[in-house]
Amino acid sequence: MFECPEITPLQTQSELSQQLKHKLNRQTKPPGSLGRLESLALQIGLIQNRESPELIAPQMLVFAADHGLAAQGVSAYPAEVTAQMVQNFLSGGAAISVLARQHGLALTVIDAGVKFDFSHRPGLEIRKIAHGTQDSSLMPAMTDAQCQHALQAGCEVVQQRSGNVVLLGEMGIGNTASAALLMAALTPIALADCIGRGTGLDEAGLARKVAVLQKVWHLHASLQGSKTVLTPLQALAKLGGFEIAMMTGAALQAAHARRLIVVDGFIATAAILVATKLKPAVLDYCVFAHCSGESGHRALLAHLGGSPLLDWGLRLGEGSGAALVWPLIASAVHLLNEMASFESAGVSDRLDSSVESNKP
Amino acid sequence: MFECPEITPLQTQSELSQQLKHKLNRQTKPPGSLGRLESLALQIGLIQNRESPELIAPQMLVFAADHGLAAQGVSAYPAEVTAQMVQNFLSGGAAISVLARQHGLALTVIDAGVKFDFSHRPGLEIRKIAHGTQDSSLMPAMTDAQCQHALQAGCEVVQQRSGNVVLLGEMGIGNTASAALLMAALTPIALADCIGRGTGLDEAGLARKVAVLQKVWHLHASLQGSKTVLTPLQALAKLGGFEIAMMTGAALQAAHARRLIVVDGFIATAAILVATKLKPAVLDYCVFAHCSGESGHRALLAHLGGSPLLDWGLRLGEGSGAALVWPLIASAVHLLNEMASFESAGVSDRLDSSVESNKP
Repeated sequence: MFECPEITPLQTQSELSQQLKHKLNRQTKPPGSLGRLESLALQIGLIQNRESPELIAPQMLVFAADHGLAAQGVSAYPAEVTAQMVQNFLSGGAAISVLARQHGLALTVIDAGVKFDFSHRPGLEIRKIAHGTQDSSLMPAMTDAQCQHALQAGCEVVQQRSGNVVLLGEMGIGNTASAALLMAALTPIALADCIGRGTGLDEAGLARKVAVLQKVWHLHASLQGSKTVLTPLQALAKLGGFEIAMMTGAALQAAHARRLIVVDGFIATAAILVATKLKPAVLDYCVFAHCSGESGHRALLAHLGGSPLLDWGLRLGEGSGAALVWPLIASAVHLLNEMASFESAGVSDRLDSSVESNKP
Repeated sequence: MFECPEITPLQTQSELSQQLKHKLNRQTKPPGSLGRLESLALQIGLIQNRESPELIAPQMLVFAADHGLAAQGVSAYPAEVTAQMVQNFLSGGAAISVLARQHGLALTVIDAGVKFDFSHRPGLEIRKIAHGTQDSSLMPAMTDAQCQHALQAGCEVVQQRSGNVVLLGEMGIGNTASAALLMAALTPIALADCIGRGTGLDEAGLARKVAVLQKVWHLHASLQGSKTVLTPLQALAKLGGFEIAMMTGAALQAAHARRLIVVDGFIATAAILVATKLKPAVLDYCVFAHCSGESGHRALLAHLGGSPLLDWGLRLGEGSGAALVWPLIASAVHLLNEMASFESAGVSDRLDSSVESNKP
């Protein structure tokens, strides 16, 4: 049912890469002095396979779903907040609504499996797999067929949209629990180091979440105390969520189609983790917007070798961090395309200008 | 001649501060989950003394001047680059031109003392104190009268402009040397830890810069091996630059008029350092855009207790980092003003919602 899209790794030693570096080094600034902006410009040039890339019709995709595990009390908020926040996204009052409006990002909320039947509204795409996952403390969160279906739906959501950028965000009460379980299953990091306070659990709430996730872990992923070897898709089905699976599919399709992927926070990064286990080259197409306040995120980013743009203690989700950094990414492209060269501006070069820096 | 403007410290325990925190905590997100965006929103609300602040007519001010000390070979670039880059700023080909255009920032280049006579052009304000400072390895960089004149000019540049935000940037071949000397004179940090590679000195160039700055230091600021006590204005006159002095004046006036100040990189931060020694409350009005790749900047920010928004290895100056972060600051205000509350959006609150978080 789900056929994983092929992804071409970026050629960082290619002729184009040299051309992009040369272009950056001839601009009216000391070589490398725009730091991270230069590495972003290089990455986007390589993704688009051109010296003067353009960012076209960026798509802010927010995947929403409910989690059966929420019944075990792993969140500070009641499960109905998932559906209520979807309404808030569409009404324009949520953080992601404000940020998407500020930057002119096309915002689509995808109902990946919310426990509520929405009527059709502009900006909402209904791709509901079920009314929430099953409670993974009792059984697998989804069937293998549901998992495949969700991955495929994520692909299709991207395929059906124009442009060359996707920004990935999510909403789902209980989904930091699901992301922590996936992280523990697919990295060498211990489960305890993957679990955080989510939307803001207090000490007692955190202790309860840890106990619940240990129970889930023992049911699905531990073998006499050590980790079993779950395949990425087994882990996704047993421990994941519909919104996470759809983000995984969306990322794979976006990278296949050479679109830039802007990854929001902990849960979106967990979806990318699953995607990298299927197609490692997907990482070449990703920009990690920020390191969130959710405690497992820093270690997860380090595991992936991802270098986040911001470290602001954001922990909201919704794609808010991805939308927030959008103008920074746009700046990298503007600078690459619009800056004058030393020659064209008549600016004197370095006193030792025969030495071209090897930066960035 | 220069009368230092009065600055009112922000009242972080005021009723308004409580109102702003309450407003942020009632928005449809877990309290504190927008991290740094919430502290920015709080700061801007306090600066403007209102619950719904607005950012009006942000002024990107780039102060340019030459440095007599450049003759001693403290930069990788020849001194004529200062004037050439001013032309480039005005022609639209420099990084700051691109970023100001992207964000609709009014860009003004102030000739604070460039060694070149510009003709009048839109976007250029001529406030030239002299054709560059004197060589501070031989004598004070400027006279006390020139220093006062530059501070006053910086005040006036801000006074003459509308709006409630100033973004401070600079251009001046040799000015990381001047900033390092000011940092050493006005903080407990040793001179050697204040000196960096500027626009990209190699090892030999850095060694030469260190030797030159030690000579300057011994001439003006050391007394039998330990630091003398230079007053802030003595340090500014002996070691500073016209663009640095004007930025100091601009910051003091901006804070006096309750404008937000967005500080670019190492040199702009050195100007703020001088300002804080005159009026400590100026810091309440500052946002530090980024921690630059120039090696002294991190320690200088730590000395000031400033928490930079980005850590991207930028080291260009021109105000480029300040302009880059502009939309992030705008986001903080949009979110504060436009997000729905739990009540207005009909979203269920925390399960333990009687406990209002004390964040941010």
